[in-house]
Amino acid sequence: MTTVTAGSSTLIDRRNLAFLLYEWLEADRLTERSRYAGHSREMFDDVLELAERIAKDRFAPHNRAADEQEPHLRDGRVEMVDGVADALAAFFEAGLAAASMDDAVGGMALPYVVSMASFAFLQAANSATAGYAMLTIAAANLLIANGLPEQIDRFALPMMNGRFFGTMCLSETQAGSSLGDIATRAIGQGDGTYRLFGSKMWISGGEHELAENIIHLVLAKIPGGPVGAKGISLFVVPRVLVEDDGSLGERNDVVVVGLNHKMGSRGTVNTVLAFGDGEFTPGGQAGAVGYLVGQPHCGLSYMFHMMNEARVEVGLGAASLGSAGYLKALRYARERPQGRRRADMDPSDRQVPIIEHPDVRRMLLAQKSYVEGAFGLLLYCAKLVDDQLTLDGEAERADAHLLLELLTPIAKSWPSQWCLEANSLAIQVHGGYGYAREYEVEQHYRDNRLNPIHEGTHGIQALDLLGRKVTMHEGRALRLLADAIDATAGRARRRGGELAEHGRALAESLARLQDVTARLCQRQIECAEEALANASIYLEAAGHIVVAWIWLEQLLIAEQRDGAFYEGKRAAGRFFYRHELPRTAPQLDLLERLDRTTLDTEPAWL
Amino acid sequence: MTTVTAGSSTLIDRRNLAFLLYEWLEADRLTERSRYAGHSREMFDDVLELAERIAKDRFAPHNRAADEQEPHLRDGRVEMVDGVADALAAFFEAGLAAASMDDAVGGMALPYVVSMASFAFLQAANSATAGYAMLTIAAANLLIANGLPEQIDRFALPMMNGRFFGTMCLSETQAGSSLGDIATRAIGQGDGTYRLFGSKMWISGGEHELAENIIHLVLAKIPGGPVGAKGISLFVVPRVLVEDDGSLGERNDVVVVGLNHKMGSRGTVNTVLAFGDGEFTPGGQAGAVGYLVGQPHCGLSYMFHMMNEARVEVGLGAASLGSAGYLKALRYARERPQGRRRADMDPSDRQVPIIEHPDVRRMLLAQKSYVEGAFGLLLYCAKLVDDQLTLDGEAERADAHLLLELLTPIAKSWPSQWCLEANSLAIQVHGGYGYAREYEVEQHYRDNRLNPIHEGTHGIQALDLLGRKVTMHEGRALRLLADAIDATAGRARRRGGELAEHGRALAESLARLQDVTARLCQRQIECAEEALANASIYLEAAGHIVVAWIWLEQLLIAEQRDGAFYEGKRAAGRFFYRHELPRTAPQLDLLERLDRTTLDTEPAWL
Repeated sequence: MTTVTAGSSTLIDRRNLAFLLYEWLEADRLTERSRYAGHSREMFDDVLELAERIAKDRFAPHNRAADEQEPHLRDGRVEMVDGVADALAAFFEAGLAAASMDDAVGGMALPYVVSMASFAFLQAANSATAGYAMLTIAAANLLIANGLPEQIDRFALPMMNGRFFGTMCLSETQAGSSLGDIATRAIGQGDGTYRLFGSKMWISGGEHELAENIIHLVLAKIPGGPVGAKGISLFVVPRVLVEDDGSLGERNDVVVVGLNHKMGSRGTVNTVLAFGDGEFTPGGQAGAVGYLVGQPHCGLSYMFHMMNEARVEVGLGAASLGSAGYLKALRYARERPQGRRRADMDPSDRQVPIIEHPDVRRMLLAQKSYVEGAFGLLLYCAKLVDDQLTLDGEAERADAHLLLELLTPIAKSWPSQWCLEANSLAIQVHGGYGYAREYEVEQHYRDNRLNPIHEGTHGIQALDLLGRKVTMHEGRALRLLADAIDATAGRARRRGGELAEHGRALAESLARLQDVTARLCQRQIECAEEALANASIYLEAAGHIVVAWIWLEQLLIAEQRDGAFYEGKRAAGRFFYRHELPRTAPQLDLLERLDRTTLDTEPAWL
Repeated sequence: MTTVTAGSSTLIDRRNLAFLLYEWLEADRLTERSRYAGHSREMFDDVLELAERIAKDRFAPHNRAADEQEPHLRDGRVEMVDGVADALAAFFEAGLAAASMDDAVGGMALPYVVSMASFAFLQAANSATAGYAMLTIAAANLLIANGLPEQIDRFALPMMNGRFFGTMCLSETQAGSSLGDIATRAIGQGDGTYRLFGSKMWISGGEHELAENIIHLVLAKIPGGPVGAKGISLFVVPRVLVEDDGSLGERNDVVVVGLNHKMGSRGTVNTVLAFGDGEFTPGGQAGAVGYLVGQPHCGLSYMFHMMNEARVEVGLGAASLGSAGYLKALRYARERPQGRRRADMDPSDRQVPIIEHPDVRRMLLAQKSYVEGAFGLLLYCAKLVDDQLTLDGEAERADAHLLLELLTPIAKSWPSQWCLEANSLAIQVHGGYGYAREYEVEQHYRDNRLNPIHEGTHGIQALDLLGRKVTMHEGRALRLLADAIDATAGRARRRGGELAEHGRALAESLARLQDVTARLCQRQIECAEEALANASIYLEAAGHIVVAWIWLEQLLIAEQRDGAFYEGKRAAGRFFYRHELPRTAPQLDLLERLDRTTLDTEPAWL
């Protein structure tokens, strides 16, 4: 057991991570599965240790500088602060990018749950710099899953060691959430290659000098294909063409035409890219050279494979920033003297640390309950990734996959909402200092505000959950989740005492959620617009109930153990059950009565 | 009736303001009172028109620039963008600073409710620049209320026309919320003057070149006085000494020693000031020259007079930023095409404006319900300021004062919480664009995040409400409020239909709040710490119930009128009753059971 305590780090609480990974999820037992047989808990801990060290030594030091001096264009090149390139080089050199990938492609075949836990340190230390790594890994994974062997060799393998970086090019100015409306065209050249023409918006990492090359994964339409989302294909478009021997060739016609300047997450350069604008003419010809990935017109499904992974990573980023804020607020609350306890208001006495004030403890407990609830959910999802790959039976693997699909919109949106709230509370604990840029929590808050937006807004996640996930396979995913929650609630009830109380509250909330879901699914058949009008509220209620379940899982373990750490778990779990879960009651009421307030409001009235 | 519609401005909706001022609060009838007899509705409208014009033409244009190029120190002087000085000069020249002050001191004796409504335009256009005006007016008002005639002549009158600016110097690094712990000393010189020594933190407008002089109102302790808050005195400390004839004399020993750099509200320079540090020696002697205001050791009560005014103004600033964000989100939602309606998903059809999506309308309705609820509350409070001054009977004036005292912590904190949330929703409506600094809503969000912190954090407001205001005068203030709410609920019930439903919901929530309050007040006698442990939650619940009341007042008027504006009122009010008021139920449950979760959590467990 690691002996690092919460107080010693302001990134991620290693003690909590060990609790979640080993005491709860039994990640060490994954080594019993053949894929992970070569590993051990010691190796897992070494990876976490390594990630923490790189996070502290390489990622954290330039976090503020990259915010204050954001990337800028000079002569068509993107300049940024020193430190970004070094940090990412250290990350790739350590092999962390390929941690969970197959041996066959040079990976370590670590469980995804361990690889994801390790990545949290980097996101907590510097989410903007970690963004480049995340995009590169996701792009490499997509190619490995869907690309031709030669595409994997030429593009994906150099991404895994950081020689090349990757991007996802989906949005265009007129097509953000509505990808079916993209206008970028890909013209077949008869030789298997395509030429792309169009422009892409909001492309993170779209141009920089951090790597030898940038591999863009680009959604575009092949003329003559189906209209809308069914006519989208996926292409690899390298910034610089790659020769057969892997060396760099001619410059491809993809150029940065502008940068977006964000409220936070500034260190991740965000670009507008032009494809085939004519600045370069590779092979003496117009257009950006692109290579089709997989089948024509199937691009969106490949991208969604990557996007699902990215969505869980977004949730992890949100939770990591929540953690960094919480641990800083906690340290500040222990050290900052201000005021006196209500029971002893003698002004001649010394001031007490603000953690002595109940309202400050409320703000800390809320943060702890959000952050540790979110980490629990995310690591649970990460383990489902491992399960869908390595469980013995095919049916079990399919179920793990279904449950992961159902939980993905929640794993993306819940941490984005509540760990942002945690960052707001971290500011509030700091008072005026929290609002000052001399402290770090205000940056966490700004950085985190991105997470409810990118990779699908809350509204999009809500439609995904209620409009697709709960109804797919005739509701099997939701039944799997309900069975898991019911089992946990049942165990808690049998324990008696406070746990039984929590178990009853959870079972009751779940039953209401199931009733409401049935009603909404029925209504979807009759009038989808009405059924989905309050999808965002459904997402929030479902999220709180799922996290209450995750907390009860943690409490079932903590109950049997002594010491301050477990007392803290009990306190935060109690807080979630008393202060948070009850929020869902009025939400479920509103959903139950198919509230039409928003639907019946005419745009002209606003 | 003004014909300006919501779409035509992105600062404050004039149509809504006219509704609140005239249709609801009947501000035009204030001219029946002798103090306001010289005025008319036309004059009120002219003032609003003037404020709007200055806001648009002078305040708005440099809002972004002052954020991007924040004030900085050069050779001990504060430099800032052009535009700030011009804007403030236009404001003071127009006489808006003195709008509600007595004729006797050169004011216009306008109703405060009108003067406050006019100030909202400036806060919506540029809250940072408006901050200088707000501080100056508040300082002048304090001196007029509590200063000697010569102090008024010498310091306050030049503030009313903008020749001098003002500040409030309360906090020190070791004393923010706990003012009893300030260490700045004031040494009597035997000639009626004092010399001050110490340093002050978080001083907005503490140093600049915007005016000929800066008049600091400084809390300090006279050695030998009582310990704690009871030993605090208030001093006028001008940056430059003022001669008997009003001309400027010697430089006083108050100097800026550093600037704080904030997440938002950057245009308001925020300083660390040193008093009596020896950089200047006015009269050849050490110390900053200060003049006692009122009686020794009574400084905090004078300052609280000013602070109460400032707290309502903070609420107004929050609501104004909420309004600016809402109107921009509304405009964007009408103009931005994206996706298709659920009922018509044919991808070959044109995309619809996003306002057609129910979830976007939900985010707009929420903003509207927060912003217009907050404005209603704030203008109601502003009218109470007029009432406490001009109602006929002494008892009526006293009651208006009491009700205002009770509502002040809510008027400060509720808009700070919910109009910040409105700004977050404005970002969300904009999607990725909302997160980009090329759009304005991200700045509103950053600027607004200050409001839950300064002039007393949420936690401080909560203790003020539950620990002081609801118990003062044996609960008379709360009884006054309850009677007013009950009367409104009764009227609504008699109207029948949807209004009756709202009336019943409001009466029920109020009854629960009263029960909970009685229980908590009883418990305060036995164990104050337990009774106050959840004061913040009490503040939130009370705030939502009060705003539900304000909404019902608006709905009672809107019900009888036709047209899109009134439909919009009904939709937003309905939203508040269906989506918002129900949030209070679990909060009241928690308060009722005297939840001890935070109290029983040991600091060491976190």
